[in-house]
Amino acid sequence: MSVTAAQGFTAAGIAAGIKANGNPDLALVVNNGPRLAAAGVFTSNRVKAAPVHWSEQVMRGGAVSAVILNSGGANACTGPKGFQDTHATAEKVAATLNGLGPGAEHNAGEIAVASTGLIGVPLPMDKLLPGVDAAAAALSADGGEAAAIAIKTTDTVHKTAVVTRDGWTVGGMAKGAGMLAPGLATMLVVLTTDADVDSAGLDKALRAATRTTFDRIDSDGCMSTNDTVLLLASGASGQVPAYDEFAEAVRAVCDDLARQLIGDAEGASKDIRIEVIGAVNEDDAVEVGRSIARNNLLKCAIHGEDPNWGRVLSAIGTTKASFDPDRLNVAINGIWVCKNGSVGQDRDLVSMKDREVRITADLATGSESAVIWANDLTAEYVHENSAYSS
Amino acid sequence: MSVTAAQGFTAAGIAAGIKANGNPDLALVVNNGPRLAAAGVFTSNRVKAAPVHWSEQVMRGGAVSAVILNSGGANACTGPKGFQDTHATAEKVAATLNGLGPGAEHNAGEIAVASTGLIGVPLPMDKLLPGVDAAAAALSADGGEAAAIAIKTTDTVHKTAVVTRDGWTVGGMAKGAGMLAPGLATMLVVLTTDADVDSAGLDKALRAATRTTFDRIDSDGCMSTNDTVLLLASGASGQVPAYDEFAEAVRAVCDDLARQLIGDAEGASKDIRIEVIGAVNEDDAVEVGRSIARNNLLKCAIHGEDPNWGRVLSAIGTTKASFDPDRLNVAINGIWVCKNGSVGQDRDLVSMKDREVRITADLATGSESAVIWANDLTAEYVHENSAYSS
Repeated sequence: MSVTAAQGFTAAGIAAGIKANGNPDLALVVNNGPRLAAAGVFTSNRVKAAPVHWSEQVMRGGAVSAVILNSGGANACTGPKGFQDTHATAEKVAATLNGLGPGAEHNAGEIAVASTGLIGVPLPMDKLLPGVDAAAAALSADGGEAAAIAIKTTDTVHKTAVVTRDGWTVGGMAKGAGMLAPGLATMLVVLTTDADVDSAGLDKALRAATRTTFDRIDSDGCMSTNDTVLLLASGASGQVPAYDEFAEAVRAVCDDLARQLIGDAEGASKDIRIEVIGAVNEDDAVEVGRSIARNNLLKCAIHGEDPNWGRVLSAIGTTKASFDPDRLNVAINGIWVCKNGSVGQDRDLVSMKDREVRITADLATGSESAVIWANDLTAEYVHENSAYSS
Repeated sequence: MSVTAAQGFTAAGIAAGIKANGNPDLALVVNNGPRLAAAGVFTSNRVKAAPVHWSEQVMRGGAVSAVILNSGGANACTGPKGFQDTHATAEKVAATLNGLGPGAEHNAGEIAVASTGLIGVPLPMDKLLPGVDAAAAALSADGGEAAAIAIKTTDTVHKTAVVTRDGWTVGGMAKGAGMLAPGLATMLVVLTTDADVDSAGLDKALRAATRTTFDRIDSDGCMSTNDTVLLLASGASGQVPAYDEFAEAVRAVCDDLARQLIGDAEGASKDIRIEVIGAVNEDDAVEVGRSIARNNLLKCAIHGEDPNWGRVLSAIGTTKASFDPDRLNVAINGIWVCKNGSVGQDRDLVSMKDREVRITADLATGSESAVIWANDLTAEYVHENSAYSS
């Protein structure tokens, strides 16, 4: 049901010819109101794609009437022409939607744009702009699935999630299968809700949700130039949920989508749940979790189903977190293979056959914790990413 | 010629049975004086192996009469017993050398110990201690080569380097083929000189040398628990070099050995020389260089001979260095494929057939620079490190 699960939204996904293989590559999501409230979170990479620069400006107004998303090209590192292309796309969407007949008046300053694909290649505007016409013509209240399919790059499956509460719904779609790292990932996410929430409420709920979901998945340590997570509210349900209830629903959808991203990461054979416990504060727990998540030697060991806890300790040792090396404990799939910084339970007790592997790192200095999700490192990852642009 | 190129040193390398495959695994280097000056640099990982804790204490005295090194086991994360084993090894070396007959009086407090191999596995002391007798019996002024061979783990070749100046020599050996990352690497390095230099002079020259050599190679971003670089001076040449001249010679040997480590990194098919120029200061240049060196997606692209400069920009964008994204320039093997943050020269002009690949990242904000060496990421790396401990 994706972005059209909530009332007040239409969507479409079509093949505009941006991808050479003819697969769907252009998605359009329209908020038909009555509200046009919106919030967004973007990559923290300082090298940002043109559509990120554009959409960040759009978000300052707190209103979004439509989102146009393309796969097949990131429009990153494309200079002033790239920004002009993004601007022209937003203008084209506004004009096309206004041409559909009477109704909401669209203007380019309320059209968010998102792109994903190869960096450093200009978008084929001769294909993208006519594609906007085709996408607008295909808009429907059932178009969420097609939109989710059209934003895929190396994703093997499209990702959607929906939660329904007391008369209102939060739903969404996500793409992302590589370059997954905090801040956020090569991910495009559009969430919609028919709850009646203003842009300040959306912004607060979205930031709280991404902080502990998308920002805590780390497939390969590589931060993208294009990450965009948008939350649009139509208010069409007429329901005004309590903030906490709404924030929980947004978090649930983000958590579901984030888990799907890890489960479909490029070349991965394992999903690694890293829980850091016993930290003096959450920042320490996150720092240690990320360090473990990014250790290539450990990621190889997990791939080989080798409970190599020494590599976990090596990774912890590179952080500035509070801990005593002689008090560290590590469990892999529930077996405490390292106790007090040294050999613990028999490593042969650890079974790692399942796709999900659980690592627990106990810093033994406090009571705070955090969970980071990561993937293993495989020959398939190397293969997929050494051949990507050729 | 290795550690016995300089006068005043004897060495040996033997098979003590620590490695199951019967390969050499125990090296002994003895300084026969007249000086016993020494300096050391150790891993900055907070999880340190027992021999690192021991040798750091030994270095405080500024005198080392012998170094015992084993491969086949890191003696890291082995608890109090691991430290007792290191201590017992040093005591055994002192007693054994004293038993060889009249001459220098050895004591355990001047015996450095270094270990390398798997973390979290106790050393087989029943094999190591008798091995000390065998190593002592094999000591010779030609033993440097055998010592260099005995410290290998996954190294495919042993690494030695020697420079000779005006009547004095600096030589050394190194091992290390994985976990290579700043601070320092899974590397054991022993350098010897017959120049007459006190421990303060050795320490200053060694720290200056490692800062721009071993600390700027980053094969896989993983920092070890055991890294040890020692410099011993016998004074046997009777020559007292000027500090600058001595420091340059130490740096030349370190640079040679560091380059050999990158050239033999586990599973690597490319050596990547990353030069960051146009930085406002050296710290910025090093931060950017390390970020590029550790980007898995870029490392895969280099493996695939794909001049994917977008991944270089993505990596630069994650740093705090001073730069304007729209002024960044990137050359790969001399072709400026990215100019002013956007598409530059035709990427098809870039040839990447050779093992050495040169990336130049121009931050265009200053005049400082730094060079970091890295390796590509390959299926062989994954294979070697997913099967290592099994």
